[in-house]
Amino acid sequence: MSDEGASIRQLIDKDQIIDLVHEYSYGVDHQLYDEVVKLFTEDCVVDYGPGIGPVRSRARLRDMFGYAEGGFTATSHHNANVLVTFDDADHASVRTAFYAWHKRADGLTPRVWGYYHDIVVRLPEGWRISRRQLRVLGVENWQMEMHPAAGADGL
Amino acid sequence: MSDEGASIRQLIDKDQIIDLVHEYSYGVDHQLYDEVVKLFTEDCVVDYGPGIGPVRSRARLRDMFGYAEGGFTATSHHNANVLVTFDDADHASVRTAFYAWHKRADGLTPRVWGYYHDIVVRLPEGWRISRRQLRVLGVENWQMEMHPAAGADGL
Amino acid sequence: MSDEGASIRQLIDKDQIIDLVHEYSYGVDHQLYDEVVKLFTEDCVVDYGPGIGPVRSRARLRDMFGYAEGGFTATSHHNANVLVTFDDADHASVRTAFYAWHKRADGLTPRVWGYYHDIVVRLPEGWRISRRQLRVLGVENWQMEMHPAAGADGL
Repeated sequence: MSDEGASIRQLIDKDQIIDLVHEYSYGVDHQLYDEVVKLFTEDCVVDYGPGIGPVRSRARLRDMFGYAEGGFTATSHHNANVLVTFDDADHASVRTAFYAWHKRADGLTPRVWGYYHDIVVRLPEGWRISRRQLRVLGVENWQMEMHPAAGADGL
Repeated sequence: MSDEGASIRQLIDKDQIIDLVHEYSYGVDHQLYDEVVKLFTEDCVVDYGPGIGPVRSRARLRDMFGYAEGGFTATSHHNANVLVTFDDADHASVRTAFYAWHKRADGLTPRVWGYYHDIVVRLPEGWRISRRQLRVLGVENWQMEMHPAAGADGL
Repeated sequence: MSDEGASIRQLIDKDQIIDLVHEYSYGVDHQLYDEVVKLFTEDCVVDYGPGIGPVRSRARLRDMFGYAEGGFTATSHHNANVLVTFDDADHASVRTAFYAWHKRADGLTPRVWGYYHDIVVRLPEGWRISRRQLRVLGVENWQMEMHPAAGADGL
């Protein structure tokens, strides 16, 4: 394949990977949790901070969203600065800035600013998230212990 | 056309559609309303909520922006998570998360978090927005009645 | 080159330019200032407002970040609405909406909403930012004098 051919193929892959990250946020904010977990591999490891602990497997991730639903009456997740680095043709690392607004039943609106650090993998059915770690730059009205962004180790 | 050729063509279209959504936000925040309405079809239907009611036609949309200008001294609209689904070669559905900050003359800064749900169509002069509905996830210091995101029906 | 070939080439360039803008924000929020300044040309002009004054050269830009580090304990920069206009094959103008959250040592969290107006240039090593001006739509708990977005002149 020509150099340009390879660049195009990678651009198409990158577009699909960015959609994957965005589908996650759309799904969470619309409580489409059954759809959300299909964006992850069956053996995914999702680490949203020491306050929750890493979730291992798609089934456990589904359980976690059941819990989250109880906690907030609404959420709004906004992705930015999506940066994709290909490790090989079928694996990539993704860094995505997020700004997350939440509403609790008592009216408080906790906010979190940070980055998702993902590893995505190409499966026969498409790109899926196999590892996700959330690293935090700042919070407001947020109690749970999180991974700090600057000092966080790699996955 | 080869499969890859079709993917490339769609990637080019998608890029133009995403620019369309972004030009809207740039235009509104810089009060370039004459330019903004050109991003819509002549017979567009723009529904920003029951508090305003659907605006039908580009000319009525221009009137609406005249009114908005009176209401805020500044606005800042931030798009995220743009998701484009092609219905056929010349029509697509677009979901775009937005975070909108507004400043009123009295100093209050109303904020809105939600999604634009657009239908875009390819015209000879390029892609244009033919339908837009705003569905809201959350507000702060915002009085007007809006469409809720979760319970909103399709356009 | 065919028309489609030219469109593809431009899509690849645009993707690299958007990454450039995003790498800046990632780098600043993770205090990777030595990496950040490599995203600019040696003779760059970076104008973050009358309160700082234009910084001329990559070396002076590095000094400016040293100062910034002293001012904030954390920052989170979120890009949106990235709009790229090619002036010729090797030069482009870029408008990027940003939402910037900062944390000071005293606990205050100043916020800025606005646009980066960049000129980027293709060098042998890749696309680099040669001119950047920040134009502001709104601020919260922010003291420094900035360029207003609406009345700002071109670079």
